[in-house]
Amino acid sequence: MKARVHVMLKNGVLDPQGEAVRHALGAMGFGGVNGVRQGKVIELDLAPGTSEAEVTQMCEKLLANTVIESYSVEMV
Amino acid sequence: MKARVHVMLKNGVLDPQGEAVRHALGAMGFGGVNGVRQGKVIELDLAPGTSEAEVTQMCEKLLANTVIESYSVEMV
Repeated sequence: MKARVHVMLKNGVLDPQGEAVRHALGAMGFGGVNGVRQGKVIELDLAPGTSEAEVTQMCEKLLANTVIESYSVEMV
Repeated sequence: MKARVHVMLKNGVLDPQGEAVRHALGAMGFGGVNGVRQGKVIELDLAPGTSEAEVTQMCEKLLANTVIESYSVEMV
């Protein structure tokens, strides 16, 4: 049983890492990239029976900084 | 038009960041987490008409280190 958690900076929070990628892509000749946001993806290999609510608790307490980051949980 | 790129360490490549998360979750009382892998997600805001092949080129040349990382492209 697996869960995939996406953690992204909230809209409006400056993302210097994404901005650096955008700039680098432009310098390498890739036009047409208007914006880049970079986040984390965390794949959890879970024991059977672990609920999505528990994964949400993990996000709230450790995986995401909810002041500046939003997260989404996907059970796969 | 948007593209989402997932970049993960290949299987067999040591992931100390994921291992640290797994350890921390255990120490916080979350049982049942057998393994954690951490990767990157990059959201690209693209000009209309940009093809998936171009995004794949961006991955090969900049976004992923294909020696140790695998990537997947998803147009959204």
